[in-house]
Parts: sequence; structure tokens; C-alpha cells
Amino acid sequence: MLSAFTTQFLLPRENQLFMYRPQIKVLDCTIRDGGLINKWQFSDELVRATYQAVSEAGVDYMEIGYKAPREMFDPKEYGKWRFCDEDDVKRVLDGLELKSKLACMVDIGRVNEADILPVRDSIFDMIRVACYVKDVDKGIALSNHLMDKGYEVTLNIMAVSTNLEKDIDEALAQLNDTAIPCVYVVDSYGSMYCEDITFLVKKYLQAMPNKTIGIHCHNNRQLAFGNTVQAIIDGANMLDASVYGIGRGAGNCTLELLLGFLKNPKYSLRPVLKLIQDYYLPLREEIEWGYLIPYMVTGMLNEHPRAGIEWRASENRDKYAEFYDTMVHSEMIE
Amino acid sequence: MLSAFTTQFLLPRENQLFMYRPQIKVLDCTIRDGGLINKWQFSDELVRATYQAVSEAGVDYMEIGYKAPREMFDPKEYGKWRFCDEDDVKRVLDGLELKSKLACMVDIGRVNEADILPVRDSIFDMIRVACYVKDVDKGIALSNHLMDKGYEVTLNIMAVSTNLEKDIDEALAQLNDTAIPCVYVVDSYGSMYCEDITFLVKKYLQAMPNKTIGIHCHNNRQLAFGNTVQAIIDGANMLDASVYGIGRGAGNCTLELLLGFLKNPKYSLRPVLKLIQDYYLPLREEIEWGYLIPYMVTGMLNEHPRAGIEWRASENRDKYAEFYDTMVHSEMIE
Repeated sequence: MLSAFTTQFLLPRENQLFMYRPQIKVLDCTIRDGGLINKWQFSDELVRATYQAVSEAGVDYMEIGYKAPREMFDPKEYGKWRFCDEDDVKRVLDGLELKSKLACMVDIGRVNEADILPVRDSIFDMIRVACYVKDVDKGIALSNHLMDKGYEVTLNIMAVSTNLEKDIDEALAQLNDTAIPCVYVVDSYGSMYCEDITFLVKKYLQAMPNKTIGIHCHNNRQLAFGNTVQAIIDGANMLDASVYGIGRGAGNCTLELLLGFLKNPKYSLRPVLKLIQDYYLPLREEIEWGYLIPYMVTGMLNEHPRAGIEWRASENRDKYAEFYDTMVHSEMIE
Repeated sequence: MLSAFTTQFLLPRENQLFMYRPQIKVLDCTIRDGGLINKWQFSDELVRATYQAVSEAGVDYMEIGYKAPREMFDPKEYGKWRFCDEDDVKRVLDGLELKSKLACMVDIGRVNEADILPVRDSIFDMIRVACYVKDVDKGIALSNHLMDKGYEVTLNIMAVSTNLEKDIDEALAQLNDTAIPCVYVVDSYGSMYCEDITFLVKKYLQAMPNKTIGIHCHNNRQLAFGNTVQAIIDGANMLDASVYGIGRGAGNCTLELLLGFLKNPKYSLRPVLKLIQDYYLPLREEIEWGYLIPYMVTGMLNEHPRAGIEWRASENRDKYAEFYDTMVHSEMIE
């Protein structure tokens, strides 16, 4: 039988051969990225069940939301995973064995550093910093601050597909001079093909040879899982995925496909399948994500899914040809 | 902007450079493969609209069904595209300009050679022969017969992922000695990763250096489009796809994604998007295909989707964890 054998590398380690690469880690971003659809209005029960299943499946990290200040987002409109208060997390996960490490994300300019406890007082192990290439100085400063507080930190460079190569190179050179241990290739718009993934992962590895490279893909063109596999082949070791692919617009690499692919025996698929049938199939009836033509079109055009999301919320939601016309014509700007 | 640039090869041809590979051809298998879901019970209107759109989109071939004998399949149960009578095709496409060439498929042992007219008397240009590795002698004999009648012929080796390499090699060596111009890599079970595609396309090309290699992928793990792109990179020039990915179980590589990827200006995406909104969104409400967990599981296990199709037709259809248990336990046979 053909298999993923060759991808997962036979690495000698303490005289033992593996069919997998032991350095690979998986991060579940279900609640954080999924919350972009419904303003993080998930029930406590769903979040708890998600943590339990993800943890039982052997997933290394679970990202449970964003840490944003209440002054910027109205708690009447946004659910608790927009804020990730320590007390909320502790209450919802109360009594569970915390096998998966807990992570949250912060956006440049949308975080109050004073809200973040030293790691020894926090339930979180990791904080991920999301920033654009142009903001990489701010991203580095924030990352340094978080590392000083004791957290594991990753820096996720968003929308890299919209930058000139010289600017990417400059950002990577700067990042190489920092202690940030992990930098992500992020296909924010779902616009990349496998060869784009290869190009960027190799570029990141070359520019930052001592860092772990992460991969976060969107599924606008049904490539999120395939591109994640490609990134593994190219050397990425930190992998983002979400349950049933939930995430804004077309969503992400699905956790179930990724766990079905990885050969490390610490991962198990069944808890995630049970979680999908119990919680995420019903949720998919209430809120929308996945392969839908408007997101395919924005991905193809290397655009933010915003226009697609607005279109799907309008009465024209299923008028795909008209959406395409709108996008292609509005694209023609010199 | 990052793009598929490097994939589509800058090939010198009559002193001109292209961003695409002119040899690439696309075959739409919407009605043929989609009919496996509903026993080819499509309305004439839908089939006509599909031909029109596919033709307008510049697709090179449209495969409209199987040519099977009425003695084997009851016409009360099976729609007309199970049989592909010349008169039916002519009537349904009456008055249309036949820009896309017409193809049909035949299965070894399910075709009456006497039913097939010489190409000069037929509306069909191409007949595709589907067979398993073990039946390759029969496939070659039937292909020779069809080539003698004047048809373009492809031979599609099904379920190649279930064969030992020595048997595949033997079949390819035999095929290399024939005049059959095109042989397909078929991922029948949606079980292949990109590296498996690379392995097989390169093997086929090496064993049959003068033939066109085709690719037909299934979408059990959201890899059908990505694997088709991988096959293009590796040298496949005949590409199967279907509208909105329709096809048995998880379905196929979607035609809209493929046309959005290819850079040859003869292809256009809009007619396919319009076709989806007018015909295939409503059809998807009636019959089921696409990424569904039972098909992900059969793909992962390199199994025929049969068990998944039965599960989806039962009252347990959404009990994914139980399906997984059933499949994994039934797999454990020595």
C-alpha cells in the first residue's frame, strides 16, 4: 500500500528509527479561529468538550481565544474567548487534566500588556503574536515582553502573500536576530499553492536556521490540508489545525485530516470524530464555514475573505457568477 | 504576489514563451462520475446546461456517461447516461455547437463491442477504458478494438493504490508496447498524498515515455485538487475534474478550482460558476457528495467508499466515531 511513509522521515534518535518526525507539534486553533465567525459566542460546554477531545487526541497545544482588552471590544457583543480572562478559562476547564498546553493569541495594537500575568500565575503556556510584515518591529517588541514574562511565544506573520519579497526578507532577517523560537508561515487568504508553501518554508528556514517554522493554512481552495502536508515535507514542525476545519470564511486545515496523516502514536483520531458528531455538526447548522465559491474566488484573487463574507450574509449569497463579476471588475485598478 | 507561475512552465514553442503548458487538456467527468450517485438520473436540461457551460469554459472533453448494455442494467432503474445511446446524446445536445469533444467510459466486462459505432458514425470522439491492474490484458484488447474503430482512447487503471509495485510495473511495461496514447493515474479511493502522486506519475512517465499521463483524483481527504496540481508539476497533461466536485462518495477534483488554476487563456471560469449556482447547488440539496467524515475514513484506510456510502444511507449516518470503530476493527484481519 502506498503511504505517507517517505514524508515522515526515518530519523535516528537514541538508536531508534521512527516513521515520524518527533519534533512535529500540533496546535488546535478551533475556538480562536472559529470565533472569528460568531464573535466567540461558544457555549462553555462546547469549549470544555473541545478541550477534552483535543487533549485526549494528544494534540500538543490548544489555542482558546484572543486576549483583547474590554475597552476595545464590547463584552455584550463579544463572547469570553475574545478576552481569555484567566478566571473564565479556569472555570470552564475546571477539574480537567490539562494535558494539552493552553495558548491564546494577541494582535498588535489590540492588547493591553498589563492584562497579561507572569506565566507562573497564568493558566496559559503559550502566547502567539499575530502581525503583518510592516509591523514586525512591534511584533518583536511584544514577543520580547511576553518571553520576559516566561511564555512560550510564536510570531505569526499574517497575509505574507501580499508582500514584496524584499520586505519579507527584511522582516525575516530581523526576526533571526531575536530569541523568538517559532515563526509561522500564514496563508491568510488561502491563496497559496504547494509550490508557494515550499518557497516560503524554505525561505524562512534559510533565513532563520535555528527557529521552528510553523504553518497555518486556509481552505479557500481545498488546499489547507495538502499545503500543511507540503509544509511538513519542507520542514515545518509546528502545525495549526481546527476541528472540522472551522474558521472564518473557508476555514482551516482540519484537525481530523491532520491527525489521520501523522504517524506519531501519541495522536489519536477518534476523540475528534466523536467531538465533530456531538458538537460541530450541530454548530455547522447554525454558523457557516468551509468550501464555498465566494471564498474560492477571494482565495484565487489573493484577497481578504471580507467581500465573500459580506456576500454570503446578503440575499445574493448563492449568486456566484455575479460575485465573481464584482470581484474581478473591482480588481482592475491600476 | 505569489502565484502558480513556476508550475506552469515557461516552454519555448515557435519562439514564444507561455506561462502555461500548452499540452495540458481538461476532461469534465461531471455526468459520468456524478451518475454513480444517482444512477445517472439527471434531467436532460441539466445535462444540456452542463455541456453548454463546460464547452463555453473551454474544457477540452466532456465525458457524458458510461456505455453499458441494456441487458446488464435495467433502463427502468438506470438513467440514459448509463447507456449513452447515440440518439439520446444527439437529441439532448441538439442545436449546440460541439466545441468540447465528447467522451464516454466503458468498463471491462460491461460493454457490448457491437454497440459501438465506427467513429465516423458516432457523436463521440473519445472512449475511456477503465480497468484494474489484473485486467490490463483485457483493457488493452478493448482499447485496440476502439482505436481500430477510430476513437481517441485512454486507459484508466483503477484502484492502483491497492496493488503491489511489481504488478503495476508489469502492467505499465505491457501498456508501453501498445498504441494507446494516454494512461491515467487514478486515485480511486482518495487515499494518496502528494508524494504518492509524484511517485506514480514519475513511474508512469518513466515506463511509458511516449504516452500522455492522465490524472483522476478523489476528494476523500480534500486532496483532489492539490494532488491534481501536484500531478501537473510532475508531468501529467490530461486532467479530470467535475463541476462542484460531484462524484461518488467524496467526489472529484472540482472543475472550478482547476480552471481557476490553469493559466491557458482558452479556459474561462465564469460559465462554470453560473452553472453551479443554477443547477448544482439545487442538485446538492437532493443528492450528497463531498467531504464527509465516513469518506475521509475510507480514504485514510485505502478502502472503497462503499462502506461509507452504506453508512450515510443508514440512520447512523452522522455517527462518525462508530463508523470509524467499525472500519478500524473490520480492518484487523491477518
